[in-house]
Amino acid sequence: MHSWIDGQPATAINLQNRGLAYGDGLFETIAVRAGRPSLLGGHLARLSLGCQRLMIDADLALVRDEILRFASQLGDGVAKLVLTRGDSQRGYAPVAGAAPRRILQGSPLPSYPVEHAEHGVRLFPCQTRLGEQPLLAGLKHLNRLEQVLARAEWQDSEHAEGLMRDGQGRVIEGVYSNLFLVRDGVLLTADLSRCGVAGVMRGALLEQAQQLGMAVQVRDIAFDELQQADEVFVCNSVYGVWPVRGIAALNWSPGPLTRKLQAVARTLLDT
Amino acid sequence: MHSWIDGQPATAINLQNRGLAYGDGLFETIAVRAGRPSLLGGHLARLSLGCQRLMIDADLALVRDEILRFASQLGDGVAKLVLTRGDSQRGYAPVAGAAPRRILQGSPLPSYPVEHAEHGVRLFPCQTRLGEQPLLAGLKHLNRLEQVLARAEWQDSEHAEGLMRDGQGRVIEGVYSNLFLVRDGVLLTADLSRCGVAGVMRGALLEQAQQLGMAVQVRDIAFDELQQADEVFVCNSVYGVWPVRGIAALNWSPGPLTRKLQAVARTLLDT
Repeated sequence: MHSWIDGQPATAINLQNRGLAYGDGLFETIAVRAGRPSLLGGHLARLSLGCQRLMIDADLALVRDEILRFASQLGDGVAKLVLTRGDSQRGYAPVAGAAPRRILQGSPLPSYPVEHAEHGVRLFPCQTRLGEQPLLAGLKHLNRLEQVLARAEWQDSEHAEGLMRDGQGRVIEGVYSNLFLVRDGVLLTADLSRCGVAGVMRGALLEQAQQLGMAVQVRDIAFDELQQADEVFVCNSVYGVWPVRGIAALNWSPGPLTRKLQAVARTLLDT
Repeated sequence: MHSWIDGQPATAINLQNRGLAYGDGLFETIAVRAGRPSLLGGHLARLSLGCQRLMIDADLALVRDEILRFASQLGDGVAKLVLTRGDSQRGYAPVAGAAPRRILQGSPLPSYPVEHAEHGVRLFPCQTRLGEQPLLAGLKHLNRLEQVLARAEWQDSEHAEGLMRDGQGRVIEGVYSNLFLVRDGVLLTADLSRCGVAGVMRGALLEQAQQLGMAVQVRDIAFDELQQADEVFVCNSVYGVWPVRGIAALNWSPGPLTRKLQAVARTLLDT
């Protein structure tokens, strides 16, 4: 598939790029169908927040234009945007005036088994815990070793995703998804102010759920609360919503709120 | 200055490299004088530990050979080794059989003011706290956004380094150095099992101090203990040892143990 740097076709990047040196940048993974990027507003909003927090002075209007142009060439697939602080010599200090680099990479839409969406998935209970760092929490930054280590914990095909917890054992998210619980009709997802990635689909579903009149809570979730959950599902901006069938000894069936939000996600993703 | 990938001259790396995508790799910053890398054993030992923890299957004998060959061409300078898990398609899962990439980059020896070593430096008290992640603590991995944010906190030339603390306010390290305290003749440095980078110079000084019969403690250090310190210094494997003159309202003069270990560091670095 094709790839661009700063709007031009390219397959390699300067060794002095700070994305390579320090993970000094952000990324977005955007579903593209019929040449149109899904949930672009949400992706750009998270990117903008990330640029503010990391003090990366990027031209987001230009980023938006490039994503649209790239997506129209991609047709159907996944467009991954990586935005780094740019190049610099050795040393952590951000160099004033360094030009942020915009990288776009295309790949095919992943072909997940249809059962994932229909009957649900099992989550592997990862031992790798998410460290707390409020300055980076919520962002989709390039420092992702925790996710790499968590994803390396299972190789079987029985588990489509993993459950990640924080140092206190609280339920936070999946490795590449966010997680929701339903209990007594209330939709519940983890507060991500100390760790975790605030997924674009998570944000869109929270908004839609409130518009649909659902009761919604964003707060800390103790591990024990999984036992009391009536429904559990995971979501991201590529596959939409998957019901969760089980985690370790716990089991669920896809429930009505999960199905309702799965339909919402399908609409959001144009599938 | 020149740079290599996998032993061959190169200035750019494949966009699919996992170092760029996720910070999925490790690095070492090695002082080189007269074509010889300093503290090579320590650098390779830390790299080996990092490869074990991150499950990167690298040929460290080959890495060693390349560093020696690169250093002999560099003469005097700093050789930075970046070892990544290699290339892969989108997705956190490490791909079995992906070839780790060995990147070497040369740069001139930094020209720090001679006063830093003679009279000492002031440390900026960074607000950026180090998150706790025991799985990554001690390693010099490529996920360094905390250091980038901390280093961005000051731009003045009055502060040569910054002091970094953990979420509980404990004293951990500098942004690109380790920190030692001396109190009542005891040499003290932070335990790095929850966060921080276990510097190669730190390790070498701890070893040498014990051989010299000094009392050494590696343990948690409360911020208040800085007030009671008789001497404070920072160290790394490029500049050696700098006495610390002050942090915020606290002030010190270079003391006898600092001077002794500064001389040890000079010997270790062949300066």
